[in-house]
Amino acid sequence: MVQNLFWTDGLVTQEEREQHLKQKGVTIWLTGLSASGKSTIARTLERKLFDLGWLTFVLDGDNIRRGLNSNLGFSPEDRSENIRRIAELANLFSMAGIINVVAFISPYRRERNLARQLAGNGNFVEVYVNCPLEVCIQRDPKDLYKRALRGEIKNFTGIDAPYEAPEQPDLVIKTDIESAGECVNNILRYLREKQFIK
Amino acid sequence: MVQNLFWTDGLVTQEEREQHLKQKGVTIWLTGLSASGKSTIARTLERKLFDLGWLTFVLDGDNIRRGLNSNLGFSPEDRSENIRRIAELANLFSMAGIINVVAFISPYRRERNLARQLAGNGNFVEVYVNCPLEVCIQRDPKDLYKRALRGEIKNFTGIDAPYEAPEQPDLVIKTDIESAGECVNNILRYLREKQFIK
Repeated sequence: MVQNLFWTDGLVTQEEREQHLKQKGVTIWLTGLSASGKSTIARTLERKLFDLGWLTFVLDGDNIRRGLNSNLGFSPEDRSENIRRIAELANLFSMAGIINVVAFISPYRRERNLARQLAGNGNFVEVYVNCPLEVCIQRDPKDLYKRALRGEIKNFTGIDAPYEAPEQPDLVIKTDIESAGECVNNILRYLREKQFIK
Repeated sequence: MVQNLFWTDGLVTQEEREQHLKQKGVTIWLTGLSASGKSTIARTLERKLFDLGWLTFVLDGDNIRRGLNSNLGFSPEDRSENIRRIAELANLFSMAGIINVVAFISPYRRERNLARQLAGNGNFVEVYVNCPLEVCIQRDPKDLYKRALRGEIKNFTGIDAPYEAPEQPDLVIKTDIESAGECVNNILRYLREKQFIK
């Protein structure tokens, strides 16, 4: 009879995974207003990185708000819990050696700092997707600003809920004056400079 | 000025990732009593798969209960939410093309079925880590059974909370009569038979 099955040797480490994949596990955290272009940048970046041979994964409203975080709303508490879970999730993907791209408004500095702490400084790139509120309101692809301005949606970031812009982001991209392709190239350049990719 | 950044072309699909990695994203879900050997089997399986060249990730108490699910206890509601989040998480790792190994007691049939539904039938392998309760109580590496039997821990599976054994698991391993190595080899054989790995 096998009495004791427990040992801790042989755990596969993040470093081993990174060597195997020839890349570093890192979180690229896109923060910005609704309609600033985060998801578009994230998906374009993912496609570009993948086509270059890197293993990536995007965490955004499409796959998180409908799944893992489907039991959360938009109150300040739920927003905090939303970002806390995403930070933990991103950290797991980094541990798995994957270049993960997070695209959430993530309006509070405190939660973004928590995400950076969890990741460890060397594995976290905060990208401020900077776009003036007026431009976001003009774009408004899902009529969310219209509805928020009419009072039909409460706690909408930039309208009746705060957005705390990053004070020291690792990178700023300006989606009102640069195309998605240019923004993505800026991020790629940064990742190469910092030797996350070669 | 770039007015409209939104398009949905170019999403990297699970199939593309799987082709790139030359493996299938699949969840190997280990269920069984505390001290039945789930985490040991999971970590041994991970090491073996990794050494064979496959990309894997283990989700267990060590990395989930302390992180993502650190705000959950052991009441029936919290147990359900614990497993719901893990099922969503496992699904994300499968979407990323990774062979993910889940090692949680997951005592309720309903939640394990939810996990299978989320994964889609072809991407989910339920492994029943079958070990008699008496043997688990004998092993008791963290004195949890002792404390549960003394009433110091409430809602402990097998003592004062139910364990619903799988009715139709994809695979059963018996850690009281087989070594960890034998159990892992049985799982590997199954994964090869079903062509999850070659």
